[in-house]
Amino acid sequence: MNNAEISRRGFLAGAGLGVAGVAGFSVMPSGPSAQAHIPNHVVDFDGIHQAGITTAAQDRMHFVSFDVLDGTTRADLQDLFKTWTAMARRMTEGELATEDGAVGGGDFWVATDTGEAMDLPAANLTITIGFGPSLFDDRFGFASAKPAELNDLPHFSGDAIDEKISKGDICIQACADDPQVAVHAVRVLAKEGTGKVAVRWSQLGFGRTSSTTEAQKTPRNLFGFKDGTNNLRVEYTDLVDKHVWVHEPGDWMNNGSFLITRRIRMLIENWDRQVLKDQEETFGRDKLEGAPLGRSNEYDELPLDEYVGTDGPVIPNDAHARLAHHSENNGARMLRRGYNFVDGSDGFGHLNAGLFFIAFVASPERDFIPVQSKLSKGDKMNEYVRYESSAIFACPGGVEGPDDYWGKKLFEQTA
Amino acid sequence: MNNAEISRRGFLAGAGLGVAGVAGFSVMPSGPSAQAHIPNHVVDFDGIHQAGITTAAQDRMHFVSFDVLDGTTRADLQDLFKTWTAMARRMTEGELATEDGAVGGGDFWVATDTGEAMDLPAANLTITIGFGPSLFDDRFGFASAKPAELNDLPHFSGDAIDEKISKGDICIQACADDPQVAVHAVRVLAKEGTGKVAVRWSQLGFGRTSSTTEAQKTPRNLFGFKDGTNNLRVEYTDLVDKHVWVHEPGDWMNNGSFLITRRIRMLIENWDRQVLKDQEETFGRDKLEGAPLGRSNEYDELPLDEYVGTDGPVIPNDAHARLAHHSENNGARMLRRGYNFVDGSDGFGHLNAGLFFIAFVASPERDFIPVQSKLSKGDKMNEYVRYESSAIFACPGGVEGPDDYWGKKLFEQTA
Ligand code: HEM
Ligand code: HEM
Repeated sequence: MNNAEISRRGFLAGAGLGVAGVAGFSVMPSGPSAQAHIPNHVVDFDGIHQAGITTAAQDRMHFVSFDVLDGTTRADLQDLFKTWTAMARRMTEGELATEDGAVGGGDFWVATDTGEAMDLPAANLTITIGFGPSLFDDRFGFASAKPAELNDLPHFSGDAIDEKISKGDICIQACADDPQVAVHAVRVLAKEGTGKVAVRWSQLGFGRTSSTTEAQKTPRNLFGFKDGTNNLRVEYTDLVDKHVWVHEPGDWMNNGSFLITRRIRMLIENWDRQVLKDQEETFGRDKLEGAPLGRSNEYDELPLDEYVGTDGPVIPNDAHARLAHHSENNGARMLRRGYNFVDGSDGFGHLNAGLFFIAFVASPERDFIPVQSKLSKGDKMNEYVRYESSAIFACPGGVEGPDDYWGKKLFEQTA
Repeated sequence: MNNAEISRRGFLAGAGLGVAGVAGFSVMPSGPSAQAHIPNHVVDFDGIHQAGITTAAQDRMHFVSFDVLDGTTRADLQDLFKTWTAMARRMTEGELATEDGAVGGGDFWVATDTGEAMDLPAANLTITIGFGPSLFDDRFGFASAKPAELNDLPHFSGDAIDEKISKGDICIQACADDPQVAVHAVRVLAKEGTGKVAVRWSQLGFGRTSSTTEAQKTPRNLFGFKDGTNNLRVEYTDLVDKHVWVHEPGDWMNNGSFLITRRIRMLIENWDRQVLKDQEETFGRDKLEGAPLGRSNEYDELPLDEYVGTDGPVIPNDAHARLAHHSENNGARMLRRGYNFVDGSDGFGHLNAGLFFIAFVASPERDFIPVQSKLSKGDKMNEYVRYESSAIFACPGGVEGPDDYWGKKLFEQTA
């Protein structure tokens, strides 16, 4: 048994356990862990930046957007953020969310931790918080500290946005190598928020669609293509500094980042009927290696200025990789960190599948909006996708030590 | 790189690859695999029984129910089953679904494999097929071979069944340790079925809720309890023989099993507000160890006949484990093989989460219906769950070698 398993088992109250609780003292589970192959790695919770942004992308994600309920005050929110921070730090470390845990207490005791991750390892869990534009209205006194770029995304050509699964006051992104660990984290925080916040929408994702470190091999999206090849990576420190992290010394957003989500439904049945050559021209890359058309290695540069005889450019003008490339967008760059999803079927004979796109940028106006505009207008891929939800959140800088908590600087700045 | 990775890359046609295809010959990916920790285990596809029933329960599942489209003939179905069987066998072995694969062919070539599992290991994939009651109507000439017990489940007290996510002509259960491998399998089979069958409903699951072998540690469901303790296990050969496998020598269902699904939404927000003691009394087991109340080890027998002074039975009369126990149900037993799910949120501030219950039984009328009836009437758990979908399928015996295919015996028996 590893440490996280021991620690998550947490506190066992000596008193008041009743008949059932007595069991707690006698045995430890044996045999292979429920999900033996998930490594027990712990990602640091504290730091200048929040974890879950440049952290090596984990395999699974649970993303939730909350609305603050009527009647919740600024002080309520502050309390909640303090409690959430402590819980998030503990869960990240593979502990139960609270010290009294899932099984302590007496006859009338309600557990603070819901228990379904008790035997599971830390699994690289990261929990990242963000604040939506609506949190800065007149309810909580945050209006004066609203980041200039924190505005609902504009309507992009072709958008078919469902408001019910878009926007939100607060988001939490939980990523881990075990979905149950990510789901548990969101669920415990939602439970703690009962009466103050309510889930507006949530999304489960698997099989990440990006690498965020050089050590990671590029995964594939549900179109079957490698996704994330030309992504920003933590090792490109200058680019990450410029395009991911906000630099506003003195402001609560310093060292933070803007998180943008786009739930993109894939019309996979149409895609699957397309000839391979057209699929490759859609992205401007080949399917097997992910190499740019006209090149042979995944990491070769896109030959954006090359032509094949009179047949036109090697990388078609409407190819996704061309249109999204920084050289065609005044140097815009983003850290992509999305996940594949399959949410049952659509009632019309098709799987409800796609890409839950997530990007982190220092400046939505410079690094995201122009790229999305260009894609929305000209991307050959548009035939096969439908943009169904859209959201933006401002993620503050990292929590630095046990006295700090999510949003502390925002509260101070607006005190 | 492991064998499965190499083999899934499959066939690379030497001719007609065009600019893009050339890339295929030059490089092999390096660095850690996209999901480095998923083991590359292969489960045997062929055998007396289908895999995916007593196979050690994998961590992830994609389940799909298909309806056969109008116009599809008996011969069309037979062709489809032949092709599906060959594809399923290959994918189980970690290969691309077809020999020409995801990236072969010329300028007008449409891939047969959608490609998103190209770099992924076999991950213990199993693909199990079942036939619903409706397949035995007058469309395909199967009526005479309809198993006597293959009938839509009755309405159970409290059921709130949504027909759109219930029933179906054919089901496929794909289980693997990597969700993308399971999703890929279903998707490729659905693609192959285009024009003949359409997806009626589908369900993704994670964090299995049962152990089916003694080597597996009991996982937890989203109520935080260990689930699967008293499950049938492959090692209990006599019980499995009696309660899981159909014995009807000469019939196509010989060595097969009935598969029952119940999508059970959990009202987790209500559950989470319940005191621990009540939660434990709901199941008749403690939360930490999963031991029966009044006992201390998970595998101790339930003390169904013990009383605490005048306080009533140690295991309450309405406890789930009591009501579901074989001694209270004329010896009924089932092999449970379900998965947790979280499908976003419900639009009312809650996560849409629960248990996708799956059971395999030799006799629905002996092993399942009485238990479900009893639970539906008296289970203390009912306060916290809602039965939303229901289905039953007859899974034929296993495929035995390359000349056999799914349903072959059914076609022969009704020729
Ligand atoms: C279903 C939706 C999408 C799919 C399947 C998809 C897929 C891909 C693929 C296969 C590549 C090439 C490999 C790589 O460099 O990662 C790529 C590149 C890229 N995509 Fe997307 N993408 C989607 C949506 C988006 C959206 C919404 C944006 C931003 C608005 C975006 C921004 C980018 C960027 C910036 C690149 C890198 C281009 C370069 O510098 O070469 N993608 N995408
Ligand atoms: C959300 C729904 C359900 C939950 C959370 C749940 C949970 C549990 C738990 C925690 C146990 C005790 C540990 C164990 O032996 O596995 C159990 C036992 C059992 N459950 Fe369920 N269950 C659910 C639905 C069902 C349904 C629908 C059936 C069948 C109709 C069923 C049949 C059984 C059986 C046969 C046992 C073993 C009882 C024994 O022999 O001790 N369960 N369940």
